[in-house]
Amino acid sequence: MSKITENLIRDYRVTDGKKFRLKDIDPGDTGKARSKEEAQELLDRGIKWLSSEQEKLYATDSWSLLLVFQAMDAAGKDGTIKHVMSGVNPQGCQVHSFKAPTSDDLDHDFLWRCSKVMPERGRIGIFNRSYYEEVLVVRVHPEFLMKQKLPSELVGKKIWEDRFEDIRNFEKYQSRQGTVIRKFFLHVSREEQRRRFLSRLEQKEKNWKFSVADIAERAHWDKYMDAYEDMIRNTSTEEAPWYVVPADNKWFTRTVVAAVIVDALHALNLKFPHVDKSKRKELDAIEATLKREK
Amino acid sequence: MSKITENLIRDYRVTDGKKFRLKDIDPGDTGKARSKEEAQELLDRGIKWLSSEQEKLYATDSWSLLLVFQAMDAAGKDGTIKHVMSGVNPQGCQVHSFKAPTSDDLDHDFLWRCSKVMPERGRIGIFNRSYYEEVLVVRVHPEFLMKQKLPSELVGKKIWEDRFEDIRNFEKYQSRQGTVIRKFFLHVSREEQRRRFLSRLEQKEKNWKFSVADIAERAHWDKYMDAYEDMIRNTSTEEAPWYVVPADNKWFTRTVVAAVIVDALHALNLKFPHVDKSKRKELDAIEATLKREK
Repeated sequence: MSKITENLIRDYRVTDGKKFRLKDIDPGDTGKARSKEEAQELLDRGIKWLSSEQEKLYATDSWSLLLVFQAMDAAGKDGTIKHVMSGVNPQGCQVHSFKAPTSDDLDHDFLWRCSKVMPERGRIGIFNRSYYEEVLVVRVHPEFLMKQKLPSELVGKKIWEDRFEDIRNFEKYQSRQGTVIRKFFLHVSREEQRRRFLSRLEQKEKNWKFSVADIAERAHWDKYMDAYEDMIRNTSTEEAPWYVVPADNKWFTRTVVAAVIVDALHALNLKFPHVDKSKRKELDAIEATLKREK
Repeated sequence: MSKITENLIRDYRVTDGKKFRLKDIDPGDTGKARSKEEAQELLDRGIKWLSSEQEKLYATDSWSLLLVFQAMDAAGKDGTIKHVMSGVNPQGCQVHSFKAPTSDDLDHDFLWRCSKVMPERGRIGIFNRSYYEEVLVVRVHPEFLMKQKLPSELVGKKIWEDRFEDIRNFEKYQSRQGTVIRKFFLHVSREEQRRRFLSRLEQKEKNWKFSVADIAERAHWDKYMDAYEDMIRNTSTEEAPWYVVPADNKWFTRTVVAAVIVDALHALNLKFPHVDKSKRKELDAIEATLKREK
């Protein structure tokens, strides 16, 4: 399994962003997958394996896994989370979707609303959008930065550089505390977004997913791409790599994301906690008592 | 005011810990204070000034102030907080006392329980004990570290060095977000602790403050002093200095602590928010309407 997953994900992993350029990754790429069917079969196997590994993660109660999803609208964040994680016991998995910050959020540092819902030991935490919005939407719309009530002395030219550093430090700290971090940028093309928006408008049952704000953000496409590229260049690290996943083909996106998660859990070499001799004796005695009952 | 406060606090401030030695500070020191009465008068003036500055901090709703108190038992943390902060409007001031971590706390990274209660913008937050316990009591008692359910791969020789770095980064980040941090180590002597413990035992109304655990910790005095010294050497920075405050004389401790807070708020140069012309017009109109009523 681990060779197949490594082949599938290697090209999209960024652990050192210095030389990263977004245009080197084609949103329409489907890698070495020979067919959609083959990828689907891989995905199914991955999901099954994931579900059994998650039980061990939960039982071990020590490591946790944080999955961060960032993307333009209609790139497939929600669908990917749904398809890849549906086999997993919800008791061990927490999804948090971060919308516009509340007034309570704005009264605190920008990591606050995320850091208080970091996954507990033994759990998988999923951030559908995250603190990375602070160097994306906030960067594209400087008026959001003004709303943050930061002392004006602290809002200087170095602010994005500082935020990148703060985020890197935060993630380094979290990994030292036992949280394995994997970050996904679902990389959709502008043309594919147009097609998906149109399809949402044409299908009545998809209309709820459409908002005027989505179109407004589309107008800032190039600024967003610059912000994403700069973010990946500055926050890719060994302990918290970005995966830039081609997202014009949903089936491929899902297979790659599942493979990354499988790979991350595989590296932890999880086992069910060992029951030692004295514990075994205790359990045997309980079993005997229960059998004697009635 | 600012020259007097500077003279009072200069000798106890540590912004660069490289050369710091705990034995250079005498717990019995009373600085340049000519008398207890003079210090008391200074303290009274400081408290009054503090209370009016806090209103401005609250109105500005941008900066916040975090005061961290660490000390051995009976060094006077509670009394200092009570005496120095009693003049302040509780609506703008939040005190958090950190006891032994709960199972919920242990399921997260060690900063978690503190970072979620960082002071909101415009507020003063007081931590009676703090995340620094992680490099004090946890260091003196390795069995507490074992309880943290960290993956064993992550508990190595570098753990204290890593924690110091993580704490420095956390505080740098928090100051960039508008939280001014001042940290106090109330430095009491072993002999004075003995006297205060005896007094707690002798006075019935102070008995509630005494626990057997206090005496147990006293037996580890030297280990604690080493841990405090190492903590101060490694986590003193320009943006989040430690103040090592002589604590054998309560009146002196309180005067110095008040002076540090006065000094920190003074540096912010706080003013009530400016009401501009259009806002002035609006307010005038409201006033006129209210007068016309009845």
